[in-house]
Amino acid sequence: MRALLPDLPEFRALNESGGVPGAELAFYRSGDLPAGDADGAVLWMVDAQTRGHLLKTPGLKWALTLTAGIDHVRAQLPQGVALYNASRLHDRAVAVHVVAGMLAAERGLPGFRDAQRRGGWAPPATPGASGLRTLDGLKVVIWGFGAIGRIVGDLLAPFGAQVEGIRSGTPGAERERLLAGADWVVLLLPSTPQTRGIVNAGVLSALKPGAWLSNQGRGNLVVTDDLIAALRSGHLGGAVLDVTDPEPLPAGHPLWALPHVLITPHVASTTTDLVARGAALTRDFLLDLAQGRDPEGRVAEGRAY
Amino acid sequence: MRALLPDLPEFRALNESGGVPGAELAFYRSGDLPAGDADGAVLWMVDAQTRGHLLKTPGLKWALTLTAGIDHVRAQLPQGVALYNASRLHDRAVAVHVVAGMLAAERGLPGFRDAQRRGGWAPPATPGASGLRTLDGLKVVIWGFGAIGRIVGDLLAPFGAQVEGIRSGTPGAERERLLAGADWVVLLLPSTPQTRGIVNAGVLSALKPGAWLSNQGRGNLVVTDDLIAALRSGHLGGAVLDVTDPEPLPAGHPLWALPHVLITPHVASTTTDLVARGAALTRDFLLDLAQGRDPEGRVAEGRAY
Repeated sequence: MRALLPDLPEFRALNESGGVPGAELAFYRSGDLPAGDADGAVLWMVDAQTRGHLLKTPGLKWALTLTAGIDHVRAQLPQGVALYNASRLHDRAVAVHVVAGMLAAERGLPGFRDAQRRGGWAPPATPGASGLRTLDGLKVVIWGFGAIGRIVGDLLAPFGAQVEGIRSGTPGAERERLLAGADWVVLLLPSTPQTRGIVNAGVLSALKPGAWLSNQGRGNLVVTDDLIAALRSGHLGGAVLDVTDPEPLPAGHPLWALPHVLITPHVASTTTDLVARGAALTRDFLLDLAQGRDPEGRVAEGRAY
Repeated sequence: MRALLPDLPEFRALNESGGVPGAELAFYRSGDLPAGDADGAVLWMVDAQTRGHLLKTPGLKWALTLTAGIDHVRAQLPQGVALYNASRLHDRAVAVHVVAGMLAAERGLPGFRDAQRRGGWAPPATPGASGLRTLDGLKVVIWGFGAIGRIVGDLLAPFGAQVEGIRSGTPGAERERLLAGADWVVLLLPSTPQTRGIVNAGVLSALKPGAWLSNQGRGNLVVTDDLIAALRSGHLGGAVLDVTDPEPLPAGHPLWALPHVLITPHVASTTTDLVARGAALTRDFLLDLAQGRDPEGRVAEGRAY
């Protein structure tokens, strides 16, 4: 079995001390692909054009994307190539990032950071007026409640937050009830034709006044213009966004400067050891294939995640 | 029993629906004290001069400060006046603030906020290079391990952080071992003659390279010039400061502009319902006294916290 891997030191290291039994490893860079056939390709940190070329490698039977989302790969995937994703590589870091953004907002850190940058001590006039909260008793509704959502629930439990989840099978009336009562709505949905723009003006206006939105799923879950309107009107308390639409958010976009918005550049799943963990996952994946087991993460035909 | 209370709506409300049985309430503002004797005074959000006058009220037997620290009151306290503090009013919010600052730093939020303010999408060049971490496996050493520290431990447990505490009785060698292994050192010590300047150049240089310092206790626990030197040399990874020395930190102070420093203006214990909770605590306190029970929070003679 010949597999094409990203040319990163952590992946190169898989060839050391005996390599991966049953697998021949070849390495690609963006715009620089190894010649010859291959059974599979591990896709990561690669531009769309190179990814397209990788997916047309003669003999390709499988592709493993080391991302959680697959919408960017799905569009380029040839018929008959089995697709695997790597949600489990990212779940925990994303969950931690969700909680970090929530706590930062509730403790006023973005505003204090701005005051710090202006070089001025800016305590709230009176404690009660500051709006700072702990998470005690706050209702957190996770829309797209899977593995990440369960970890978020575990992390938030000792803070006294009340976590509830909306799944694809949650009845509409129940979904509306949950959203109407939420202090925080956390989006962890994948991007599919059904979820694109699912958070629009109607959904936003049905939220409790002062509710916060955290989008850690995909930027196009939210209708950006509707979000901006809900923030400008003051109906929404604020937003914490790791993903945006468009993405990257261009200079001069109104979202940058709105108060009560905290933007991180699609880094929720990022950790210092992410590449090393991605290489370790790849090794396990290749061993599974070489030894005739079906690896974790198979994306069923026609499924969007 | 006549008690002097801050003139805030939440305290005025204690006089409604029957008042506090056994207690006559009078209300003060900064610079505007009620005439006559009083048995006790509840001190909060008051300037030092007014506090000094309150403490000289004829007949005063007790003072309740609704703060956790008492160093600012102790200096003005007349002989024979019993002092009570209100740590329990603040413990939980401070613990949440500690975790919020830690997560913000580990997820890069201050830097991303700065990039947001400049209006630019600034993803790390490669995931591995970004320095973003979850708290998994990080060693968090809490120096001054009491009620707040225990809550911090509870909050951090599901993140996989390893929390250890240094108490006043911890042997020096053990303290040195803990500090040398810490990824984070969280200061929750009170300010006393023994703790003033306890974090100096020697202590900072003995920390692991890249360790972070979080000061949520009192500004003067840390020798500010030594902290600045340790940050400038790159030995310290960064600092999260809710308290500083001097405080408030004046405009132009070098701490404002150092990278990897996140400053909040002494708001750790602040919550939207803090004044309401302070009033409720005061009511319980007065009822205890009126009914002959010793209220919680008595500061023993000669104790600094």
